[in-house]
Amino acid sequence: MKVSELYEIPIEEAVEELKARGAKRILLQLPDGLKKFSLRIAELLQYEGFEVVLSAGGCYGGCDVAVNEATAVRADAILHVGHLEFLKIREIPVVYAPLKVVRAPLEELASQIALLLPRGAVLGLVAQLEYVELLPELKRKLQSKGFRTLIAEKPLILGCDVRAAESIANKVDAIVVLGAGEFHALGVQRRVDVKVLLADCERCEVRGLASEVKRREALRWEAISKAKEARRFLVVTSVKLGQFKLGEALKAVKALERIGAKALLAVVDEISVERLYAFTWADAFIIAGCPRLVFDHLEIYGKPVVDVEDVKYIVEEEFGASAEQEGT
Amino acid sequence: MKVSELYEIPIEEAVEELKARGAKRILLQLPDGLKKFSLRIAELLQYEGFEVVLSAGGCYGGCDVAVNEATAVRADAILHVGHLEFLKIREIPVVYAPLKVVRAPLEELASQIALLLPRGAVLGLVAQLEYVELLPELKRKLQSKGFRTLIAEKPLILGCDVRAAESIANKVDAIVVLGAGEFHALGVQRRVDVKVLLADCERCEVRGLASEVKRREALRWEAISKAKEARRFLVVTSVKLGQFKLGEALKAVKALERIGAKALLAVVDEISVERLYAFTWADAFIIAGCPRLVFDHLEIYGKPVVDVEDVKYIVEEEFGASAEQEGT
Repeated sequence: MKVSELYEIPIEEAVEELKARGAKRILLQLPDGLKKFSLRIAELLQYEGFEVVLSAGGCYGGCDVAVNEATAVRADAILHVGHLEFLKIREIPVVYAPLKVVRAPLEELASQIALLLPRGAVLGLVAQLEYVELLPELKRKLQSKGFRTLIAEKPLILGCDVRAAESIANKVDAIVVLGAGEFHALGVQRRVDVKVLLADCERCEVRGLASEVKRREALRWEAISKAKEARRFLVVTSVKLGQFKLGEALKAVKALERIGAKALLAVVDEISVERLYAFTWADAFIIAGCPRLVFDHLEIYGKPVVDVEDVKYIVEEEFGASAEQEGT
Repeated sequence: MKVSELYEIPIEEAVEELKARGAKRILLQLPDGLKKFSLRIAELLQYEGFEVVLSAGGCYGGCDVAVNEATAVRADAILHVGHLEFLKIREIPVVYAPLKVVRAPLEELASQIALLLPRGAVLGLVAQLEYVELLPELKRKLQSKGFRTLIAEKPLILGCDVRAAESIANKVDAIVVLGAGEFHALGVQRRVDVKVLLADCERCEVRGLASEVKRREALRWEAISKAKEARRFLVVTSVKLGQFKLGEALKAVKALERIGAKALLAVVDEISVERLYAFTWADAFIIAGCPRLVFDHLEIYGKPVVDVEDVKYIVEEEFGASAEQEGT
C-alpha cells in the first residue's frame, strides 16, 4: 500500500502471513506518525475477512509490541507496522510490516555529499531500517563521484543501537547515515568521533549534526550536573516488553542510595516525562526506558531528566556493566 | 498518616494487613493528586521492612488497579491508596487505604445550607467516599437548624455511580452532596431533577451546580450533534480492569455501522483524549471508559468526544441495555 510519494507499507504480504496463520481478530499497531493510515489498512484487512482492533497506545519501536492490549481483546495476532522484529514474543503471533521506500533521491543526495567532502574520502555507510536496501545503490553513486565507500557489515542502526556505525568509525573519514529525521543520525554522531552526515531522503538534504549534538550534549551534561545536586530521585521503567529495564533501574536505585540520596523505583505502561511530575518530591528523574524519552525531554519544567546510562556520572562510579546480571 | 489539615491516609492499618499477608515487595499505587505523598508512604513501608515500587500510571478510581505493573515487577501485593475496593482482583492481593477525613467544617456548611434553603425542607444526604462517615453528624447539624433529612440507604456516590442520589431524589426537596470538588456533585445534578447542593469540605463552601451542569450539558449535546454529522468514528476502550467496556464498545461500532458510518474499535492502557488525535481520519471519538474522560474533554481540538452511553442519540436507537450480554 503506497502511503506517500516516498513510502509504501507492504500490507498485502502481511495479509498473506496472517491468513496462513489462521488469524481472525487482528490487533493493528502503528507508531503515531503512521496512525493516519490506520483506517485504510483496517479497511483492507476487513475486506480480507479479518476483524480489526486498533492499538491506540504510543509505539516508537519494535521494542514496543502491544501484547497486553492484544490479550485483553483476545486478538489472534498482532500486525505491527513500521518496525522490524526486535523481540521474541511468545504470547501471541506478531506479523511485521516495516515501512518500505518507494523511491529516494539518492543521486541528489550523493551530489550534495560531493559538495561537502573531498574526493577520495572514505565514507562509511549505515542506514535506518527503511533505507538499508538502498545502501548498495548509494554506494555506487558515491563511487562514481570519486569516493571510496564502506558499508557496515550489519548496516542497520536503531534509535538505541548504533553499533553499525561504531564498528566502522575508525576505518573511515566520515559516516553517512541514510534516513530521515535527525534522531538516529544524532545518536550516531554522539557515539563516534568521526564526522557524520545525515542523508535525509524526506527533505532531500544532506547535513552535518555536530552543532546539534553539541547543543544536546550540553543539555545532557547540564541535567547530569543538576542531578548531582539532587537528593531525591525517581527512577522509572516501563512495562513495555522491550523497554523493561528493571535490572538497570534497581541498580541505579542502589547506586544512588550508596551516595546517600533517596531513590525510589517507579513503573508504568507508557513513560511520559510529563506524568512523572505528580511526584512533586522528586528533584530529578532517571529514565530506564527508551533513550528517546530523555533525548526529547532534556530541558522541561526545570527538573533534570537523565538516562539510566548516565547515572554513573551522578554517582561517579561504574556500575552499569553488570546491571543485567544482577537484575531482580 | 496525616497528609493535610483535612485528611489522613490510614497507612498503619494497611501495613498490618500487608504483614499479615506476608508480602515483601509492594506496588504502591496512588491517584495523581496523592502522589506527592508517595515518598513519605514509601519510607514508612521501607521502615517496616517492605520493598516498594511506585506505580507511575494515572489512577482515578478503584476501577483502575495496576495489575499489569504489579505483575511485571513481581510484587507480592498492591497497596492502593485513595479508593475503596471496586473490583475483585484475582491476580494479586490488593490492600486498600482510602483517604480519611480528619476534620470537616460541618457546622459552617450546615449554616450555609440554612441560608440557601427554607426551614423545614427535606434534604437528601449522600457523600463521596471520604465523607460518608460524616453524614450522621451533618444530619444532626441540619436537623438542629430545622431541616428534615434523609440519608440514602447506601449513601456513597462514585464518579460513575450516583444511584444513591437517584434512589432518594423523588422523596426530597434537595440533595446535599458532602465532598470536595465538583466532579461527583455535577454527576448527581445531571441525573436528578431536584436541586443539588455541593457541601465542599475543602473550600468550606456550599454551592449549587445547576448552571455548571447546564453549561456542560450544552457542550455534551453540541458534541452529540456534531458527532451526528461525522462519518468516521474511533471507538476507544481501556485495558484497565474496571474500565474495559469491550462489549459496549463493540455494540457502539455495530450501531454506527448500521447507520452507514465507518467505525473502528481501538484499545489502549490509559485513554487520554489527546493521544487519539494521531488518528487523523476520525471525525469523532466515542469513549467507552471512565465517564470522566469525556466530562473533562468535551470541547478540545474541535472534534466531538462522546461517551459510549450517548451513542444512542447519535444512532437514534436504544441499544445500550444489552451491551454487556453481547460483549465478545
